[in-house]
Parts: sequence; structure tokens; C-alpha cells
Amino acid sequence: MEKNCTDALPLTMNSSKNQETVCIFGTGDFGRSLGFKMLQCGYTVVFGSRNPQTSSLLPNGAEVLSHAEAAQKSDIIIIAIQREHYDFLTDLTEVLKGKILVDVSNNLKINQYQESNAEYLAQLVPGTHVVKAFNTISAWALQSGALDASRQVFVCGNDSKAKQRVMDIVRSLGLTPLDQGSLMAASEIENYPLQLFPMWRFPLYLSAALCIFFFFYCVVREVIYPYVYEKKDQTFRLAISIPNRVCPIAALVLLALVYLPGVIAAILQLYRGTKYRRFPDWLDHWMLCRKQLGLVALGFAFLHVLYTLVIPIRYYVRWRIRNITINQVKSNKDDPFSTTTAWLSDSYVALGILGFSLFVLLGITSLPSVSNMVNWREFRFVQSKLGYLTLILCTAHTLVYGGKRFLSPSILRWYLPSAYVLALIVPCTVLVLKFVLILPCIDKTLTHIRQGWERNSKISKSTLNGKMDI
Amino acid sequence: MEKNCTDALPLTMNSSKNQETVCIFGTGDFGRSLGFKMLQCGYTVVFGSRNPQTSSLLPNGAEVLSHAEAAQKSDIIIIAIQREHYDFLTDLTEVLKGKILVDVSNNLKINQYQESNAEYLAQLVPGTHVVKAFNTISAWALQSGALDASRQVFVCGNDSKAKQRVMDIVRSLGLTPLDQGSLMAASEIENYPLQLFPMWRFPLYLSAALCIFFFFYCVVREVIYPYVYEKKDQTFRLAISIPNRVCPIAALVLLALVYLPGVIAAILQLYRGTKYRRFPDWLDHWMLCRKQLGLVALGFAFLHVLYTLVIPIRYYVRWRIRNITINQVKSNKDDPFSTTTAWLSDSYVALGILGFSLFVLLGITSLPSVSNMVNWREFRFVQSKLGYLTLILCTAHTLVYGGKRFLSPSILRWYLPSAYVLALIVPCTVLVLKFVLILPCIDKTLTHIRQGWERNSKISKSTLNGKMDI
Amino acid sequence: MEKNCTDALPLTMNSSKNQETVCIFGTGDFGRSLGFKMLQCGYTVVFGSRNPQTSSLLPNGAEVLSHAEAAQKSDIIIIAIQREHYDFLTDLTEVLKGKILVDVSNNLKINQYQESNAEYLAQLVPGTHVVKAFNTISAWALQSGALDASRQVFVCGNDSKAKQRVMDIVRSLGLTPLDQGSLMAASEIENYPLQLFPMWRFPLYLSAALCIFFFFYCVVREVIYPYVYEKKDQTFRLAISIPNRVCPIAALVLLALVYLPGVIAAILQLYRGTKYRRFPDWLDHWMLCRKQLGLVALGFAFLHVLYTLVIPIRYYVRWRIRNITINQVKSNKDDPFSTTTAWLSDSYVALGILGFSLFVLLGITSLPSVSNMVNWREFRFVQSKLGYLTLILCTAHTLVYGGKRFLSPSILRWYLPSAYVLALIVPCTVLVLKFVLILPCIDKTLTHIRQGWERNSKISKSTLNGKMDI
Repeated sequence: MEKNCTDALPLTMNSSKNQETVCIFGTGDFGRSLGFKMLQCGYTVVFGSRNPQTSSLLPNGAEVLSHAEAAQKSDIIIIAIQREHYDFLTDLTEVLKGKILVDVSNNLKINQYQESNAEYLAQLVPGTHVVKAFNTISAWALQSGALDASRQVFVCGNDSKAKQRVMDIVRSLGLTPLDQGSLMAASEIENYPLQLFPMWRFPLYLSAALCIFFFFYCVVREVIYPYVYEKKDQTFRLAISIPNRVCPIAALVLLALVYLPGVIAAILQLYRGTKYRRFPDWLDHWMLCRKQLGLVALGFAFLHVLYTLVIPIRYYVRWRIRNITINQVKSNKDDPFSTTTAWLSDSYVALGILGFSLFVLLGITSLPSVSNMVNWREFRFVQSKLGYLTLILCTAHTLVYGGKRFLSPSILRWYLPSAYVLALIVPCTVLVLKFVLILPCIDKTLTHIRQGWERNSKISKSTLNGKMDI
Repeated sequence: MEKNCTDALPLTMNSSKNQETVCIFGTGDFGRSLGFKMLQCGYTVVFGSRNPQTSSLLPNGAEVLSHAEAAQKSDIIIIAIQREHYDFLTDLTEVLKGKILVDVSNNLKINQYQESNAEYLAQLVPGTHVVKAFNTISAWALQSGALDASRQVFVCGNDSKAKQRVMDIVRSLGLTPLDQGSLMAASEIENYPLQLFPMWRFPLYLSAALCIFFFFYCVVREVIYPYVYEKKDQTFRLAISIPNRVCPIAALVLLALVYLPGVIAAILQLYRGTKYRRFPDWLDHWMLCRKQLGLVALGFAFLHVLYTLVIPIRYYVRWRIRNITINQVKSNKDDPFSTTTAWLSDSYVALGILGFSLFVLLGITSLPSVSNMVNWREFRFVQSKLGYLTLILCTAHTLVYGGKRFLSPSILRWYLPSAYVLALIVPCTVLVLKFVLILPCIDKTLTHIRQGWERNSKISKSTLNGKMDI
Repeated sequence: MEKNCTDALPLTMNSSKNQETVCIFGTGDFGRSLGFKMLQCGYTVVFGSRNPQTSSLLPNGAEVLSHAEAAQKSDIIIIAIQREHYDFLTDLTEVLKGKILVDVSNNLKINQYQESNAEYLAQLVPGTHVVKAFNTISAWALQSGALDASRQVFVCGNDSKAKQRVMDIVRSLGLTPLDQGSLMAASEIENYPLQLFPMWRFPLYLSAALCIFFFFYCVVREVIYPYVYEKKDQTFRLAISIPNRVCPIAALVLLALVYLPGVIAAILQLYRGTKYRRFPDWLDHWMLCRKQLGLVALGFAFLHVLYTLVIPIRYYVRWRIRNITINQVKSNKDDPFSTTTAWLSDSYVALGILGFSLFVLLGITSLPSVSNMVNWREFRFVQSKLGYLTLILCTAHTLVYGGKRFLSPSILRWYLPSAYVLALIVPCTVLVLKFVLILPCIDKTLTHIRQGWERNSKISKSTLNGKMDI
């Protein structure tokens, strides 16, 4: 529901008894926007400023006083001032005692200071209840009401009553407060608006590298080679044919890379005989961005599907088919139906369709609202069992596709095999390793280790009351 | 998790100590359904009625008393009575003092009364804590347990303890309470269940108008014109060919209309030299329904993709291709391969595929659960940068498509150009304007204005402590 | 936002005043993992154990004491012990008095015990505040931080302050607490992690049965029959042709089965003359899994679309089209364009495209985050009105497809009609019944019944104050 307090009648609101006064320190753009929104929603707003004089920029109906005067008018003070200028607040310590200070500030860089702005504020003005809030909302969004992005306001603070009051204000402005716990969470909250898809960086760089490599690999084999040897201009292949080789390769390799870290982790645990040693950092990071890797892979698979489905409407394809037919007519040759070719052609297409459909299912399950609906067991079932089935189907799709092409001549051009042969290396490795890991004997040891057993532990599990503890 | 209290054993529940009594005024369908659900979940339910007599309609186990008697049994009273009959509650003011009254009523029309039912109730019976709740849940959903739609119960009220108690009851019925703040939110909550996609109305009407116009435009050019001049029956084009012209045009124009209001707003701000003057209402409304416009455009793009991909399995297309081949054989003409045509054909298809894929990505990002996961910076990046890239790709797709067709004769029929030429007007305008706006000199002024600077302001920013304030 | 307390500096945290001590009973894998996570997030952790001795398995910084000693250190005690061993807690009743016990246990089977573990614990140690929490999080997820699945921690308990404190701890660990109400919810919460898609079982079994039946039906007609009579090897049809018959049939029948229970329910209500009698259990269950049925149907429709769109790139199809062209050239026969065939072909394809697009729209609307955004009226509009429109379009698609095929000879093979004829039975029945139900006279009675009217009720509605009650 979009609560839009803009439409409320101001007269009704002013007459309501429980109208609160909120004080805002700072008359910058964000302070004014917040004040404007609060006035709209029925609050009385008092600005605290160094030069208290009403300006045309300030929203109508707001009072401007000196900092000390403004602070006395309300027990909630929003500090819309940059961190570098917090110092002057120390002079107001007496006035601010027991009041709620709302830190709305953001930094310019992630982890710019050692402690968060809100924690710094709390140290600076002891005796106040500092609450972090509103930093994820932009001034523009507050003014225009176009809160398309996120209505979420992360709130944290050590005093739960103060936090509750700020959350009530957040709610009354039509935003969604999210309690993030104690003030320790402030540095996370302050870093949040500065991030630009941090978990997507590695998957995107990796896939860009893969695409560029395979693109030039294919250009060499399919454009430069024919040009050098046959003087044929195949440049038009750059638009669809070659992208349609690169996309499935990227999709398959990335999908395999989603499951590779799990396999490596299992091997590490088997080798170490314990699960209580940290994985190397690169493996940890890799495991944490598996979802993003998988979604990028799904994107490439989607492109591959589209590129494949438009094949019959391409001029080149229609021209070639027409020419084949005409040549057959002219040569008066018979072209008997080959059941084997039909089987190969149909089955690699069918494998691809099934693999893609399962892949889409995996993608849907990773939508936040869907994955919140499933429990851990269901999530594991989908992402692990169905995920491996997808990998198997897609690898088989490529193998059977190859099965057809292996028969055709000129596989190697300049000693370079077809690109899809290279693409098969990673997925086949992952599948073989996984197959070894699920052999009963190895699987049993691994399960033991994952339940907390240690190969080299002198204290056996039982002495730790293991049998009765969870 | 679906909490289903239906399966709980009633015996166990009745023996539990903390069984609460809830009183329901009114024995209408909703009152009975709510009582039924509450009994199932272990509450003791007392109905208050004008004619207290147990009826077969009332759920088993519920008591029926007079209003005054019933009210004394519980400190939570659910008012399942229509607003027009609230008057009799004034007689009970003494009995109801200090109790929690839950207003569950809905109206028949949006903004039917000046103040919300809940606020009216609070005025009518002073000394009570009125809480608005349950109005978004239907009687049928309560009875059947088929809460497919929304389990969300919007709750608001001025007394936070009363609100908390009602929210606990909501939770215990397996529903999700959403705190909407003070009783001022009640009118919004009461309007909510009466809405039928209010934000979608303008985009849908607009796209309907676009579709109808372009449909008849194409009918004139492609069905009536050939019939008049060549006596050819082309009516079969109404099923696929013409929709496949209308859909991409609607998609492209609507996508451009998503970005047009932003451009207009920027021009307005530049012209006025300030961001502190409200946009005209039509622009405000347009900006607020950009998401819906974009999603409707995505729907048309999706239809266009499907219509295009089925081309090769259409009887008409197969018949034409066969005839072309046969004619070529018969005429014994050579048809040399044209690299230019291959390039044009492949690149407009490739541009379309890339544009559509980005468009789908934009659509996925606008899913509520996904857009809640991204911060403001990420949302802007996707919706603005990727959005413009989508618009550029789709416009280029149309231009290159045109590039092929411009060569063919008979562009004008009855002085009417091809429909796609008309479709290009809006997107090209938007792209040119945007290009002008991001020229460094103009962009700098605009950024200043958006940070709060005013061209005609006498008080310069610095005197407003601008440098230190956010 | 992903709150990751791992990165916080432990030194800063140790110096913070509001560091809490949490006691964990049990040093099993889950207890240790939870302790590890809590230490990371700045808590002081004390383990209570039968044999208090520090082990290398326990996280660094945690103290291990006897149960009684450990319990005295904190007023929050996490019971990471299996239910079978709760007995020893009775000896500690005195020490535990007034403290918060957090039950984190799970069972091996759904409804393994009569009362939930948490309720059992509350009975066993009276005078404590038992809170159920953390059972949906796995030890592995706590250790690795890979909380991909669900960050949701269901929390329930009778004491709201105790619950609030546990929810604060949950939040500070970067997880999302969900208040589920009183301890009565514990059995639901304990069953939750053991479920594996309970609502999907019936739809999946049903669709499997449908698929297998129609697959063999088609094999008999299209593979065995030609082999017996014409000695033709049509086995390659198993890969795509036959799946592409089975998928649309399964999709259509399942979609019709989504709407059949609603029709049956309406007929039952009309027959009984009341809505206050429970539906038979099978109907109830059927109605509750309609959403899942519809999504499975959508999956089959998606497969059907893909299988159809790849038709022109299949070897078999290309070979056949080539042969038809060649034969036509050789026989020198003219093949005049048939407008009727073009109309039939185009319109069944167009109906299919529109039906599928609406179907996708229905699927998107059933995403949890989307359906939470719409109110009851909007949800009904989409799922009922648009749903029936989808069913009508898809049935018409099949009928027009049949319209073309009815003309071709050899409909019956071994007295078996084409599979799609069988597929039409259920949807046509549903549509005819629905058409009857929306006839004004019947619809009026039904609406009355659904508003609470009873045909055989002696007490008329008005005496129940029906006119004024909701």
C-alpha cells in the first residue's frame, strides 16, 4: 500500500492532539527535504541553524531558531549536518541530555572513518540516545514522493525506546523501518548506500573475460581463417553466429563455476579431516557469490535461446536453405531421411530445452521473495539437486551437439579445436569430481566431517556430550 | 511458513492458561467468520448483539450476549458493524472506557466520508483506544483459510500498547500485521481494499489508445490498400502480421514515454532555475506511473518477441518461401549472397535481442522483492543507465529494421508512411533531448539545481550554513 | 542489506558497554556454531556442559562451565540439547527461575511428539520464559555466513519481553526475526524445516500421471501404429514431437483443474443452500493447492512454447519442407495460396501467444512479493477474471488447432482419437459449468449464499441484525 500523506488535509492534522514537534539541525538540502515531508505529514518542524533566519528555501510553516533554542522545543533532534562539523554539538551537551539524536549522515567512501558517524556522535555527546536512520533515502525521493526504489529505512540504536520512536516517525512518513539492532550496525548502514552491486563485480568481470576470450577465439576460427584460406567475407557472423557460440559457452562455464567451489570445499574438508578450519579467502568469496554467478549464467543462457530461435528468420539461413534445395533439384540427387541425424538433432535440442527450463526454475527460486518462502531443506533440494541436474543436462546438450559436429571435417583450424570443446573442460571436471564425492565411502566420511567429527581430534565427540547435544 | 491453526487440537488449547477472551459486536458474515477463525485459534469469543440469541449461523462455542454484557467480558472489542450504525455505541461509552475498539469496517467508495470510519469511531466513543485492522481480509478467506492473496493486515492506532495487542492477535491467526502508524493512516487503509490498480489506469488507457490507432493505421495500409488497388484478400494479416507491427510500436513508444517526463522535468528545472517549485500535476502523476508504463511496454515487447519467433511456422510464410524457391528454380536465376543484406538482417535482429534482454532485466529489477534488495545508487544505475541503454538499443533496432525497408518501393501508400516511422518520433526526441541535457555545461547547472542551488535566490547557499549541512 | 558482523573489530566491541553474556547449554555442532557466530558479533558466550573442559572444537574466547555455573552467568540460556535429554534441566529449576530459555531444537519427523519441544520444555521447567527460535537456521549457514536460503528466524513465546530480547539477538546476528505469536506456534515452527514442498506433492504427482498416460497414448498412435502398418521408424519423435504433444495437453488439463474445484464448490453451495457447511476434505485440499497446480501448468506451457519455437530448426522439419518443395517442382503442380488455411494457422498461433502471455502474467502475479502488493479485489480480478480468460484462450487455441486437423484423414488410429481431443474434455466441461453458474438467476442465488444467506435457515438474516452488521 502506498501511504501518501501528501493528500491528507492539513487542517485536520493540525487540530489533532498528538502532533509531535521534531527539531532538525541543519538547513541543507536533505534537512529541508525531510522537514518538508514531515510538515506534510502533520509534524511541527523546527530548524536549528547557526544563522537563524527564515529563507525562501525552507518549507513553509517551519520555524528557524538557533541550535540551542531549537533543541529545547523537541526531544527528537535530527542531525542533518556533515560529520566534520559535529564538534559544535559538544557545546550543547547540557541541552541535548536525554534527547534522541537521529544521525542521517552518509560518507563519500566505504569505511571512510574508523568508527561510524553515529557511533562518533554518541561518543561526542554522551547522555543522548543516538539512533541511525534515514541515510538510505535521498532528498529527491523525499520531495517528489517517487519512492520507487526502496522505502526501507534501516534503523539502529542502543536505546530501544528511542529506536521505537524513530521507527514510528519513519512509518508515519510512509516509509518502512527495518530494525537493525544496536548502534554497532551503523557502519554497515552507512556503507550500504555507497555500494554498487559489490557481490556482482567478480561474476561480471569473470564473464566479461570469458566472453572476450571466446569471442576472439571464434573470430579467428570462423572469420579470419576462412578469409585467409578461402577469401570469403564472413564478417556478418559477428552479429549473431559468433555471439551465439560465445553465449552458450559462457553460460555453461559459469554454471559449472557455481558448483566448482562446493566441490573444492568438500575436497579441502576431506583432506584436512575437519570442517573447523577456515577456507582460504578466495574460496570463501567465491562461495558467497555463487548465486550471482548462476544468475549471470542464466542471462547468457537466455541470450543463447533467443539467438537460436531467430535462426530461421535470418537472411543468411534462408538464403542457404533455398540454395541447398535448388542445388538438390538441379543435381537431381536423392536425399534419404536419416533417422540417426534426426535423433541427434532432436535430442540435443530437447536436452537444451529441458536444461534451460530447469535453469529458469533455479533463477525463479533465487528471487528473494521466493527463497524466503522455502525452508533450508527445500532450498538445498532445489539449488543442489536440481542445480546439478541442470548442469548435467546442459553438458549433455553440448556433448550431443558436438556428437553431430565431430563427424564433419575440418574440426581443427590452425590447430584450434571448436570453442565448445574448450567449454566442456570445466563442467566435465566438476561432474566427474562430484561423481567421485558421492561414492558411498567418500560421502560417508564427508557427512561425518560436516556433522562436526574431526579426524585428528584427541577429544572424541562423545566426551563433549556430543550424543545429547545438537 | 503457513501457520494453520485449524489443525491444532482444541482440547489442548482450551486448557492453556493464557487463553484470551475477545468480544465481537455484530453477527454479520464478517463478524461470524472472524469469530470462527478466532475460536479455531484458541480464543474465547463473545458476540455482542441487539437480539442476543444463539443462532445456527454463529460458530459453535461462541456466546451471544447483549452489547453491554459482551463488552464487559473482554477488553478487546471488535466492531463488526457498519459505520452508519455506530451511533448506539455512544450509549455504551461508560462500559467501553479504556477498552480497545478494533474497527474492521470498509466503505463502498473511496473517500466516501470526510474522516475515516476509525477516526469517526474514536470521536464517537472518547476514552477508548481505537485500532484499525482486519479490513483488508475477506470473510471468505478467513473461513476457507485460502489466504492466497495477501496475509497482510494493516494496523494503525494512536495507542501503541493497544496496537501491539491487536497485532499479537493478528499474528496468532496466521496473518501478517503491518504497523501503519497513527490513526491518521486509517483513511488510507480504508481506501486500500477498494482500489483496482489505480496506478495502472493511465498506462493501460494510453497503451490501448496507441494500439487502436496503430492497428487501424496498419489495416488501412496493409489490408484496405491492397484490396482497393490489387483486389487481394489480405485479411489473414489481422491475426499475426498486424499485431506484430502494433506491439513493437507500442513497446517502443511506451518505453520512450517512461523517460520523457524525466527529461521534461529537467528542462522545467533548468528553465525555472530552482527545484523548489512543484511540477504541474500531470507531470507529477506521469512520473509516478513510470514503472507501470515500463511494465506495459515490456508486455508488448514480450508479445512482439513471440509473434516474431513464430514467423517461420506460419502457413503463409512457408508457402511464400516455397514459392520463392520454386520460382527461382523455374526462372533459373542466380541469387548471389549479399553480405550487406546479411549484415543488416543480422544486426537488427541482434539489436532487438539485446534490447529485449536488457528490458527483461529492467522488469526483474522492478519486482518489489528485488528492488527492496538494492540501494538507491544501484536502483538509479539500473533504471536510469540501463534503461537508457535499452531505449537506445530498441530505437536502433527499429532504425536498422527501417534501413532495410527504406530500400523497398512503395513506402508511401495513400501518403501514409510505414507505421514504424511514426513510432520513431517519440523515442528519437527523448534521446536527442537527453543527449543535450548530458552535455557538460548543461549537466553542471542541472546538478547544482538538484543539490538545492537557486538561480534567483537572494540568500546565497553559504549563508544557510550550506557548506556544513546535508 | 547483508549485515556481516565478521568484519567488525573485536577490540572495539569488547570495550562497548552494552556487551551481553549469553549462555549456551550443549556443545554439539549447532551449539558451537551459534556460539561462534555470537562471539563474532560481540557477545560473551558461556557454554554449559556436563564435562566442562575447553576443547579445540569450541570457538576461541568461549568459557565452558558446568550447567549450573554457566546458567548463573546470563539470563538468556540457549538450550542446544536434544529433546530426549531435557530431563536434567528439572534439577536446575531453581537456578533457571525467571530466565529466558531459548529452544532451538528440531525433530526428525513431522509431528513426532504430541506437544512441541518448546512447550514440553516450558512444562518441564516452570517459572522460566521459553522462547522458540533459531531452529530454521543450519549450523553450516551460521559458520559460513552463506545465508543464501532464508535469513528468517521464526520466534514465538508467551512472554513478550523475553521474545523481544531474543528477537534483538537474532537481529544483531544479521538474521531476520519473525514474530509468530505465542508458544502454541512452536509445533508449526518445529515442523517447518522438515517439510519438502508439501503443497506441491499433489500437483506434481497428478501432472506426472497425466504426462505418463498421454506419452504412452501418443507413442501408441504415432510410433507403434506407423511401425505396425507402414514399417516406418518414427522413434525419433520421442525426443520432441511427442513431448510437444504431451506438454500442451498437461498444461491445458492442469489449468482447467485449477478452476474445476471452484466450480464444484459453487455447485455444492447451491445444492446445500448454505456456505456454512465444510467442503469435503479432498475439495478443501484441492482448493488450497490451486496455485501450485497453476504454476505446474505454466511450466508445461513454457516447455510447449520452447518445443514449438524450435520446430523450424529441426533436421526432420527442414528435410520435410525441402522434400515438399522438390516434389512440387518435379510434379510441376501449382500450389495456390489458401486464405482459409492462412486464417486458421495464424489464428490458432495468435490465440496460443495471447493465452501464454496472460498465463505468464498470472504466474508473475503469484510471486509472493507481487501478490503482497495487491489487495484482495485486485488479486481476485487477476486470478479469477484473467485466469478464466487464459483458460478460454488456451481452449480456443486447441480447438482451432483441431479445426485444421479435423480435415485431415486418419483421425482414428486403432479407434483412438488424437490426444488433444481427450485433452479438451476437462477444460470444456469447466467452461460450460462456469458459463451456467454466471447466468444471472444462478449467480444471484450464489451471491446471496456467499454473503451468509441460508436457504433452510429458520432465523432470517434480519433478526441477526444482519442489516447493520458486516
